[in-house]
Amino acid sequence: MSGLTFDLIKTDGKARLGTLMTAHGPIDTPAFMPVGTAATVKAMTPEAVAGTGAQIILANTYHLMLRPGAERVERFGGLHKFMNWPGPILTDSGGFQVMSLSELRKLEEEGVTFRSHVDGAYHKLTPERAIQIQHMLDADITMVLDECTPYPAEDNAVKDSMELSMRWAARSKKAFRESKGYGLFGIVQGGVHAEFRERSAKALIDIGFDGYAVGGLAVGEGRELMFSTLDVTVPHLPPDRPRYLMGVGKPEDLVGAIRRGIDMFDCVLPTRSGRTDQAFTRRGTLNMRNARHRDDPRPIDPDCACYACSNYSRGYLHHLIQAKEILAAMLMTWHNLHYYQELMKGMRDAIAEGGLDAFTAVFAAEQAAGDIEPV
Amino acid sequence: MSGLTFDLIKTDGKARLGTLMTAHGPIDTPAFMPVGTAATVKAMTPEAVAGTGAQIILANTYHLMLRPGAERVERFGGLHKFMNWPGPILTDSGGFQVMSLSELRKLEEEGVTFRSHVDGAYHKLTPERAIQIQHMLDADITMVLDECTPYPAEDNAVKDSMELSMRWAARSKKAFRESKGYGLFGIVQGGVHAEFRERSAKALIDIGFDGYAVGGLAVGEGRELMFSTLDVTVPHLPPDRPRYLMGVGKPEDLVGAIRRGIDMFDCVLPTRSGRTDQAFTRRGTLNMRNARHRDDPRPIDPDCACYACSNYSRGYLHHLIQAKEILAAMLMTWHNLHYYQELMKGMRDAIAEGGLDAFTAVFAAEQAAGDIEPV
Repeated sequence: MSGLTFDLIKTDGKARLGTLMTAHGPIDTPAFMPVGTAATVKAMTPEAVAGTGAQIILANTYHLMLRPGAERVERFGGLHKFMNWPGPILTDSGGFQVMSLSELRKLEEEGVTFRSHVDGAYHKLTPERAIQIQHMLDADITMVLDECTPYPAEDNAVKDSMELSMRWAARSKKAFRESKGYGLFGIVQGGVHAEFRERSAKALIDIGFDGYAVGGLAVGEGRELMFSTLDVTVPHLPPDRPRYLMGVGKPEDLVGAIRRGIDMFDCVLPTRSGRTDQAFTRRGTLNMRNARHRDDPRPIDPDCACYACSNYSRGYLHHLIQAKEILAAMLMTWHNLHYYQELMKGMRDAIAEGGLDAFTAVFAAEQAAGDIEPV
Repeated sequence: MSGLTFDLIKTDGKARLGTLMTAHGPIDTPAFMPVGTAATVKAMTPEAVAGTGAQIILANTYHLMLRPGAERVERFGGLHKFMNWPGPILTDSGGFQVMSLSELRKLEEEGVTFRSHVDGAYHKLTPERAIQIQHMLDADITMVLDECTPYPAEDNAVKDSMELSMRWAARSKKAFRESKGYGLFGIVQGGVHAEFRERSAKALIDIGFDGYAVGGLAVGEGRELMFSTLDVTVPHLPPDRPRYLMGVGKPEDLVGAIRRGIDMFDCVLPTRSGRTDQAFTRRGTLNMRNARHRDDPRPIDPDCACYACSNYSRGYLHHLIQAKEILAAMLMTWHNLHYYQELMKGMRDAIAEGGLDAFTAVFAAEQAAGDIEPV
């Protein structure tokens, strides 16, 4: 019995329109999940995050287990209550950040040992502990612990890594406590190798999960190889379960992946870019630190209805950035998250109307056109 | 003809309840003005600032003339439009910051020459230029340029400085373009010297202003000397005009100054303290970085109705601070500004009911009681 209900409403080519129901509410797919690493989507109130259209956020198990600690979050009643986000939350397993952020790690069959980047203390993360932590965090969607295979790597290393992840996936499933509205996702690995990806998908399906993630992409292989890997992976995933491409990505990546049958995404790009002065628009990315915006009375995007574009000029945002004001990060993040959610909504509407090809053509043409001209 | 209408509604002892009407709306006095130095109240949206109860904010002429430049703000339609704050704005003259922030200044009868802390460029600020800049910023309340007398200083130096400020006040008045809803405030100087304060007040009254500020206090003289200086200054100010104590202060300072007949305040304390982890409460100041808050599920103040206290625990705020999250500054600032506005509202209500002594006794007892006990 599955803990998460997924309704597939309509398809357009390989793209899918659906609704995923969780304990804390529904998620319209395709969906983009803003990243709330340390139990906060940086520079945003939860109400503002919801106001951009986001229905689900992602939180990072690695960060939260180190600070404030999963046991502490549980004592506070779980992440939703702790951080004042009443909607669904997906937590990653911590595996990816152990590899990328911690020191002195040791990878064994049992799990991974690492040193905290916060205080230098040693920790061990096993598939069972990763599940336990995510239960304590009260994640609606829990991810299995996996090894994110380095890229590039020799075929044998990719295969060994994938097979370890599959054994960990089976242990994760066994440790997961089933409950209505809560679900566990497996993660397909196998690098950019079609056969390994297929074997990984089949191994996960044999175990049985509420959803299937594609991991180990957007790690330097490039868009073409990422897309071709999706082409040889997604067909092996069950059509009645949600599919989640982890850590992706740029607007063009989302459009291409949705056209290849992906339903869910997460990425730090809109939030991190917001804090580094980059604004996403239908007509490409703008560096608001650029002096050409200094006297511009127009919003970032005159067609955008977000809080930042409704109330502030490019000139003001440029000023806030120059003055290193916190409001700059707040407004830029707000705009970027709104842009990402509007893109998702546009894709969902296009799938609903069977007009995804036309939507994609307009998207590509507008991105290529570049910034609107000054009046 | 006065540009600002001031209605004195009621008094309780020397304390006054009033309403000051400006071009951008009314201000209930006693009033606390949050500081929006660089055309933003740091870490707050304007809507959030208004939500705390603030009706007027202060912006700093020195910062804005250097960046983004007064001419630029004027091209954007003035500060209200530029920063999305539709309410009243008071701008200081820039004089105080020239003395405290800039380098290589030269003080002459004509004005003051200084080097920008932003880009090292030389600027000159005269009484006329200070008024012109504030007109370009579209300030509802403009302040005369004055010299903030250093403390401590010899009597002769205090007198000379005060007299220069009075000559500058006359030039400021002459340069000010009168308009309905817009007003010019003079600034009483004279250090902690009763006779100089009286002479300064009389000189300003002879010139004639829409309101009278008390400057040159809270510069290290201590609360007792500040209060005794107010005691010998306020009686010389016209009762039918608002009185503004510049750059003050702590909650106890506001209560004491209101009891001495002051109507308006500004201070960076609630906002700056919010960014350095200090929370103001009825029962004193809390350092939210302190580990004792780590597991505390209670809000900063259970009796506070602010956004932070309505939705977040001390434990969560402590976590945000430890993780250096922007939301920490946002929530702490929000709470502190709300506390200051509630204190002002409490004082206004007490004056309206003739119960200021009782209010003051409760205020002092609660401040002395210290933090609420853990449950």
